[in-house]
Amino acid sequence: MSVSEMRELPPAELRAAIRAGEYTGPTGGLARRRVQANLVILPEEYAFDFLKFCVRNPKPCPVLEVTDAGSPEPAALAPGADLRTDVPRYRVYEDGRLAGEPVEITAYWRRDLVAFLLGCSFTFETALLAAGLRLAHVEQGRNVPMYVTNRECVPSGPFSGPMVVSMRPYRADEIPRVVSITGRYPAMHGAPVHVGDPAGLGIGDLSRPDFGEPVELEEGQIPVFWACGVTPQVAIRNAGVPLVITHSPGHMFITDRLNPEYEI
Amino acid sequence: MSVSEMRELPPAELRAAIRAGEYTGPTGGLARRRVQANLVILPEEYAFDFLKFCVRNPKPCPVLEVTDAGSPEPAALAPGADLRTDVPRYRVYEDGRLAGEPVEITAYWRRDLVAFLLGCSFTFETALLAAGLRLAHVEQGRNVPMYVTNRECVPSGPFSGPMVVSMRPYRADEIPRVVSITGRYPAMHGAPVHVGDPAGLGIGDLSRPDFGEPVELEEGQIPVFWACGVTPQVAIRNAGVPLVITHSPGHMFITDRLNPEYEI
Repeated sequence: MSVSEMRELPPAELRAAIRAGEYTGPTGGLARRRVQANLVILPEEYAFDFLKFCVRNPKPCPVLEVTDAGSPEPAALAPGADLRTDVPRYRVYEDGRLAGEPVEITAYWRRDLVAFLLGCSFTFETALLAAGLRLAHVEQGRNVPMYVTNRECVPSGPFSGPMVVSMRPYRADEIPRVVSITGRYPAMHGAPVHVGDPAGLGIGDLSRPDFGEPVELEEGQIPVFWACGVTPQVAIRNAGVPLVITHSPGHMFITDRLNPEYEI
Repeated sequence: MSVSEMRELPPAELRAAIRAGEYTGPTGGLARRRVQANLVILPEEYAFDFLKFCVRNPKPCPVLEVTDAGSPEPAALAPGADLRTDVPRYRVYEDGRLAGEPVEITAYWRRDLVAFLLGCSFTFETALLAAGLRLAHVEQGRNVPMYVTNRECVPSGPFSGPMVVSMRPYRADEIPRVVSITGRYPAMHGAPVHVGDPAGLGIGDLSRPDFGEPVELEEGQIPVFWACGVTPQVAIRNAGVPLVITHSPGHMFITDRLNPEYEI
């Protein structure tokens, strides 16, 4: 199925097409009105410390839902969905090593696994576009650039690490609107954590992001930094969890919830 | 020490006076600019399910901080404080029965205990007063009336039960301001869950609250209901946790954080 055919489907039909293997691509641009979520699946043994890590670091790790151990159904965000099959592509990490990038994870499922759905910047990006603000990385056909900062997250049990930020450039006169629009979505990373001065976050060279791809800044644009959902992935890697399953970057879980339900 | 002497102390000195046993009364009106918090202490075995319960029911159970197991220090909200001594009065429940209401809990402390600090309505009540809005229960010298509703919380493990609400009466023309002012504090129960029509929440008789004391409604006043921090206490009672320690009603933990830090 093509992206343009997919784009107009209601979320349950989108997930059904993904479940049937008819779509395995990135979800950016699909179901623009719906909340898309980062997925992290861990053994229950690690679930309390990880949830505590998220609560202690809500800007990079905003929790939207936590499933019951063994249940693959996100009953609050998408009743009837199945987190084992309804994400277009997963990443499976065994003992910290990428063991595969499958399109479903039924074979890996266990009764002690707990799934976490975390807010994702697509919601505020949609709001920025709706307000006539630009997204440089989208215009330039790149993944958003992400940088490891010198700010440490508050640790929890084995989970620790630096905050990772994403960067989007804006003009000085746009920044007040950019801050207030994204600040309306605290469950999707919210307002920026830093405006300008990459060195203040310990970022030496904007043209060399740690994740994603660099974007060109136009004359007069200032880099604006948001807490990023890659932060918990770095913390999980540091924790040495024997089995972790996440979505593959850009291949998010599409929920039933409308973006404005999370607007404040 | 008298309440009027206490009122002006900085939070660390207030806590020191409480720790020294110089003050064992309720904390309403003390440190008006500071966030006060509900306290729940549970064995680690129950901590994940309880934290999941809070995340699933954020209006009644807004989590401000979770301590590491065995640590009585709320490092984020009040570094250097001690949750075993710095609350004026506690309630200790053993196997669901009230075992005592001590002024410190050092003897009960164990290495597997986890403390949760949850947002409290004092923050939004201060904001209502600052905006010239009245608090009927304060004017009438009563505890705020609280009611068990017909709305079930989303359960988590052994934790389940109805949402409990507090009620404050306002005139029709005040309600828009009341909603928007309290809505600025989502970490302190936020906007009301219900305006008017007690029957819609399953409340039969406003003059017979399940907790607290009834307040008189003036001609033209409408009851306004907020999700209430007694909700998690009911859920904990339902869960059959062998040891639970909470603050005694009205005897909250006073943090270092300023109310506006939580304003959105």
